[in-house]
Amino acid sequence: MNRPYPSALLESAVNEFAKLPGIGRKTALRLVLHLLREDNASVESFANAILTLKNEVRYCSCCHNISDSEICNLCADPNRNSSIVCVVENIKDVMAIENTVQFKGQYHVLGGIISPIDGIGPSDVEIASLIERVETKEVKEVILALSATMEGDTTNFYIFRKLEPFNIKVSIIARGVSVGNEIEYTDEVTLGRSILNRTPFEESYKLNQK
Amino acid sequence: MNRPYPSALLESAVNEFAKLPGIGRKTALRLVLHLLREDNASVESFANAILTLKNEVRYCSCCHNISDSEICNLCADPNRNSSIVCVVENIKDVMAIENTVQFKGQYHVLGGIISPIDGIGPSDVEIASLIERVETKEVKEVILALSATMEGDTTNFYIFRKLEPFNIKVSIIARGVSVGNEIEYTDEVTLGRSILNRTPFEESYKLNQK
Repeated sequence: MNRPYPSALLESAVNEFAKLPGIGRKTALRLVLHLLREDNASVESFANAILTLKNEVRYCSCCHNISDSEICNLCADPNRNSSIVCVVENIKDVMAIENTVQFKGQYHVLGGIISPIDGIGPSDVEIASLIERVETKEVKEVILALSATMEGDTTNFYIFRKLEPFNIKVSIIARGVSVGNEIEYTDEVTLGRSILNRTPFEESYKLNQK
Repeated sequence: MNRPYPSALLESAVNEFAKLPGIGRKTALRLVLHLLREDNASVESFANAILTLKNEVRYCSCCHNISDSEICNLCADPNRNSSIVCVVENIKDVMAIENTVQFKGQYHVLGGIISPIDGIGPSDVEIASLIERVETKEVKEVILALSATMEGDTTNFYIFRKLEPFNIKVSIIARGVSVGNEIEYTDEVTLGRSILNRTPFEESYKLNQK
């Protein structure tokens, strides 16, 4: 049983925090009480950072990543190869791939993946703009870097079909045993795929030297 | 290695979230991206709930609990016994004890406990106002319900010494609460029992000496 909070203001703040994903009511209360102990300036800067982001955020007109300007830093960078476009689900994937320092092309952020069960169809994600980008700009290769789930596979296949008429290279990031993982603990599907998609040893060895 | 965020606004919002206790940068990013997907009204109500709480929150002038009015609901309730005062560290402890439905007296929220290692002395918590309350109002019993930690024990003993001249009953909740555990995470049955089985402080102190 849970008794009412001693203050309606407190309860409303806790309710708001508890709406966030992965935040339960106990955690929400802990966070709200933490903010209550902070000085006014800190709490205002917390609230303002969120409001400013929400009100002023823009999305790059080219890759649809979050950006402060019309064209994001990655798309505007002349050192990046604009003829290779890596298709990802969201901005976290861009950051993850950027962290590898292995990719020097540009991105295309779908903002979601096709998931009929969640009511997300092809028109709800940025696929049309990807096709347009391939149509109007000099794109030589599209790399599909979506999650290895059923929804990711569906989306990959849909995009592949849409890109077929353009006669460009469409590749997909390798699926196989994760670096550092042991063979015996790798799931069967991944292991099977990694055998079918085996790579010439020289190639793999050269990659390891980099 | 972590590459910069694609947007300074995003980074500043993530930084603000990452300041909250128990929220790392990855979780912060997840929460911020969640808010970005919400509509403007939701985000505004989130930010406003926090600002309103921070700007308008009041503390009960009697027990120092968070309250929407000068005197909190618990202190204003004529059905509660104002001659028994339960001393707790913070509002979460009040809520935990209220949830047991075993206590019908009033509270006194210290707002912290004495912790020399954190630089928190007796004057940093609401002990003076507790003494004043005992001095000026008809308090017959003070129940000490602080966490069963070294800091809790220190604070208990300090308060006990301060209350000695008034010749009132000073009791301590039964140590059915496992030593080392904190009040807010104790299950309701144990916590309720520990209030019913409170022990005179002298006895408890003697037990600790054995």
